[in-house]
Amino acid sequence: MDSSSVVRIALDVMGGDHAPRTTLDGARLALANHANLHLQLVGDEGKLRPLLKHHGLVGDLGLRCEIVHAPSVVTMEDKPTSVLKDKKDSSIRIACQLVREGKADGVVSMGNTGAAMVASVMVIGTLDGVDRPCLAGVMPNAKGRPTVLLDVGANVDSKPEHVAQFAVMGSVYAEEVLGIQAPRVGLLSVGEEDSKGNEITKASGVLLREMGIAFQGNAEGRDIWNGNFDVVACDGFVGNVVLKSSEALAESIVRGLRESISQNLRSKVGGLLVRPAMRSFMKKLDYAEYGGAPLLGVKGVSIIGHGRSDGRAVASAIRVAVRASEHRINDLIQASLHKVLPNGSTGGGSR
Amino acid sequence: MDSSSVVRIALDVMGGDHAPRTTLDGARLALANHANLHLQLVGDEGKLRPLLKHHGLVGDLGLRCEIVHAPSVVTMEDKPTSVLKDKKDSSIRIACQLVREGKADGVVSMGNTGAAMVASVMVIGTLDGVDRPCLAGVMPNAKGRPTVLLDVGANVDSKPEHVAQFAVMGSVYAEEVLGIQAPRVGLLSVGEEDSKGNEITKASGVLLREMGIAFQGNAEGRDIWNGNFDVVACDGFVGNVVLKSSEALAESIVRGLRESISQNLRSKVGGLLVRPAMRSFMKKLDYAEYGGAPLLGVKGVSIIGHGRSDGRAVASAIRVAVRASEHRINDLIQASLHKVLPNGSTGGGSR
Repeated sequence: MDSSSVVRIALDVMGGDHAPRTTLDGARLALANHANLHLQLVGDEGKLRPLLKHHGLVGDLGLRCEIVHAPSVVTMEDKPTSVLKDKKDSSIRIACQLVREGKADGVVSMGNTGAAMVASVMVIGTLDGVDRPCLAGVMPNAKGRPTVLLDVGANVDSKPEHVAQFAVMGSVYAEEVLGIQAPRVGLLSVGEEDSKGNEITKASGVLLREMGIAFQGNAEGRDIWNGNFDVVACDGFVGNVVLKSSEALAESIVRGLRESISQNLRSKVGGLLVRPAMRSFMKKLDYAEYGGAPLLGVKGVSIIGHGRSDGRAVASAIRVAVRASEHRINDLIQASLHKVLPNGSTGGGSR
Repeated sequence: MDSSSVVRIALDVMGGDHAPRTTLDGARLALANHANLHLQLVGDEGKLRPLLKHHGLVGDLGLRCEIVHAPSVVTMEDKPTSVLKDKKDSSIRIACQLVREGKADGVVSMGNTGAAMVASVMVIGTLDGVDRPCLAGVMPNAKGRPTVLLDVGANVDSKPEHVAQFAVMGSVYAEEVLGIQAPRVGLLSVGEEDSKGNEITKASGVLLREMGIAFQGNAEGRDIWNGNFDVVACDGFVGNVVLKSSEALAESIVRGLRESISQNLRSKVGGLLVRPAMRSFMKKLDYAEYGGAPLLGVKGVSIIGHGRSDGRAVASAIRVAVRASEHRINDLIQASLHKVLPNGSTGGGSR
């Protein structure tokens, strides 16, 4: 697909803390940004139809979107597996169904992360040569560039062959979607030397040298942020803990600083003067700028955003989906894995 | 030992990026702060003797410290196991020897962390009932209190019984040394529900309900910072990654904000006005305020500080060692473990 041909994205309009307001705002922004985008707005038609005009999804933009009816919605309280049972008619499942049937190139959801992962993996299916899809977190590093951390939560108890596949998928994603040439790939561990790590990382390191990527050896926790690596591969347990811990730490620092500044008149005045600079810095940290987290390894593009996403963050996630589709990221992932594994498997078949 | 009786601490004066300058400064501060402290300054006597006067270790304070000669020093480049081989006469090993021989109640080092752990475990020895000692990180949470995260790097591939022991040791430490009554203990995992986690955490959770501590179930990454738990237990691989990642993220945010503020005159002026408020907030985040990380589970007190520690941080680490000694933390850990494991073992005997 060249970048001028149409990209069709199924948007789970009902997913997210403030959906469908935020998702419809995001839809409008994304349609305005990408002339080749066609959006399938998946959700309750009766609720959505009256909202389109208010959100500017009329006229020229309206011609490039359509509502696909889905009667139910998976809430944040529902179990991820609900999409396989009583919520088969939910917006996230029907959006994935569109990808499976070849009616959409990708799906974007800000809803229940677990449910979006289960629906993507079970309905869209897994790429040939991929044992386990993984969720990639894009972290803004100290050099003002993104570092891809993966897996950040799709898998626990990953085997070395899974971690090696995560690294390959992350390398393709960093190169094609984030535009980083020959991404430097690290294996998350507790020391720089090959001898440092646990049983899984030591075995993963051996495999990673054979994967045809720019593997640089072990990365430490600090390397997620200092820009020394473009891709950092790990099991989803540690990736998820780091992701959630970092989000909370960053929020705690920023809130703590604000409170500290508002405690007396002198620093309050100073606070007003530094506010634009603080805002411009915070924007660099803001997940909304980086779009959602791609679920790599499924047969189609699947981008999972933060439940708190505003319209701008939804549009960023759609931008990521468009770019991943245009760059045929799945073909490239499959080719990269086949190159190193001609039989299409690293031998880690069990899920 | 009541708090008025003498506490004898062996200080590895040669360990640390700027030792012995910083360690001697710390020694003076600590002696001034604790009237019942006696310090053994372990290091090269020829080098140290001429420095004592300059660092104020004379007069009254000088009476409460003595040099214990150690001809060699473990550098940051040396392997941790060097203390067992060619560096048997190093300051960290000789400091641990003083504890083993009953001549000191505890040891404090800002040197090579791995070497300090190996020397503590192998020379001082492990408490009865403890399969693996662990390193406890004290993190400043959003409620302005400390959260104890452990293990932060002494062990990888921990078994469930090890994680359960870490939790008990962390709970005793939080109560006795940090003064938190009935500390709320969490098990670090990827979701709140008991069903969320990996094989090790699920098995650890079952054991933790039987350990006689205030176990509150799973904690997530964010709970390390939000103050919802006082103690968070995990394997040393994930704890180490979180610790190093958090340190780097916090530094990156603060440096990024400073750079952003210095980019134009308006915010530069504002920056001057908010500086005291920022400093007072940063102090809350500062590891120097919290002292070093205690290595829990050895037969004596062992506190391992940051290589970058300044004199104030060294004094904080000594304060932690004094407090742990005064509160007889090892007797309490042993009693807590014996209470739940009358035979003195959780069955995780292999190291």
